[in-house]
Amino acid sequence: MPHIVVYSPRLTREKKATCVAALTKAFEESTGLDANLLTIHIEEHSYDNIGVGGKLLTDAYPEIAEREKQFQETNQ
Amino acid sequence: MPHIVVYSPRLTREKKATCVAALTKAFEESTGLDANLLTIHIEEHSYDNIGVGGKLLTDAYPEIAEREKQFQETNQ
Amino acid sequence: MPHIVVYSPRLTREKKATCVAALTKAFEESTGLDANLLTIHIEEHSYDNIGVGGKLLTDAYPEIAEREKQFQETNQ
Amino acid sequence: MPHIVVYSPRLTREKKATCVAALTKAFEESTGLDANLLTIHIEEHSYDNIGVGGKLLTDAYPEIAEREKQFQETNQ
Amino acid sequence: MPHIVVYSPRLTREKKATCVAALTKAFEESTGLDANLLTIHIEEHSYDNIGVGGKLLTDAYPEIAEREKQFQETNQ
Amino acid sequence: MPHIVVYSPRLTREKKATCVAALTKAFEESTGLDANLLTIHIEEHSYDNIGVGGKLLTDAYPEIAEREKQFQETNQ
Repeated sequence: MPHIVVYSPRLTREKKATCVAALTKAFEESTGLDANLLTIHIEEHSYDNIGVGGKLLTDAYPEIAEREKQFQETNQ
Repeated sequence: MPHIVVYSPRLTREKKATCVAALTKAFEESTGLDANLLTIHIEEHSYDNIGVGGKLLTDAYPEIAEREKQFQETNQ
Repeated sequence: MPHIVVYSPRLTREKKATCVAALTKAFEESTGLDANLLTIHIEEHSYDNIGVGGKLLTDAYPEIAEREKQFQETNQ
Repeated sequence: MPHIVVYSPRLTREKKATCVAALTKAFEESTGLDANLLTIHIEEHSYDNIGVGGKLLTDAYPEIAEREKQFQETNQ
Repeated sequence: MPHIVVYSPRLTREKKATCVAALTKAFEESTGLDANLLTIHIEEHSYDNIGVGGKLLTDAYPEIAEREKQFQETNQ
Repeated sequence: MPHIVVYSPRLTREKKATCVAALTKAFEESTGLDANLLTIHIEEHSYDNIGVGGKLLTDAYPEIAEREKQFQETNQ
């Protein structure tokens, strides 16, 4: 039943795997709940869909805008 | 006002339509609340973004990894 | 893995049980996914925490304000 | 710490930027909480993944189906 | 259909009303979407249920722990 | 910006503190993202509001119903 939803900046696939493993281990060890029952969703969003301090990330940080452009082109 | 968010494995468009109709009917009949006011979001994620038992689905189940690859290619 | 989150007005315990049973049956029949793997959370909020059309429900609808008052007193 | 999740129909990038700025200003002015600590996620979904009144939006509204088709093609 | 979920520190009822009104106005003016269709949920949690920087708020900030204690006693 | 929402069975305050610390450390070490920017919400619900396999937890498991009763009485 336990379900963890992670709102995170974009992660490489490798980091997603490491993150899911680490969070699951941490959750099991700290709560005693069975890791096999834990589902984790990594919520990735375009940086055009995330705002911090009143600005879209892609407006607030040029390097993030550049990264987002490359991501969109690679995954076009 | 009622809003249902469904974290689900990937569904075909046809199954999404059947699922939304069935959930709406079930919700209206069981609660008496007006189906026309109910919004449903089906939250679909890449299987690279879902972890169960500490592993990404695409690492834990080779057949899911294969399905995800085909989905990405078809929707590239 | 599937997880359904229901943002709903307050329901009696009886209606919660009927709703969970009906939604689970509807989900299983429409998607073919195993009902035993489905978790449902019914998200109940105070009507002071829900806004529609720019007003708190308890400001917009006097009868809801009255119901919320009684609920708070009974569950005080 | 505050986090706002917006389930919204598709918005142009320009409207996302205006919306994030307006929501952040409104939140800060009405609560007194620091805008710089506020994160906003705009949750956009395919109109095939949103149901209202028991139907997928793309089944219920032909013009929305057409818009979704164009969006998918442009972002293919 | 639009739905906004606000994860916020505790707000007084008065601030909730002002916040809902302000967010709704901001959303309508910035997106052109009808305010009457917008639902807002203010997600309030005990400060024992919120962690920042690896600590529960009630452990990280003594004044917050004190406020939470008073809130629990008033709403006991 | 990162935000983790944990849908979990009820945890003691002590376990909440350990869980938040463990999840934060795991997240920082696996993603390289700054722990100080991570917010965690532990979503606790009455067991009358959680369904698994089509039944409310309090209907499916008598021992959980008993625990829920005691929790409600202690926190009445």
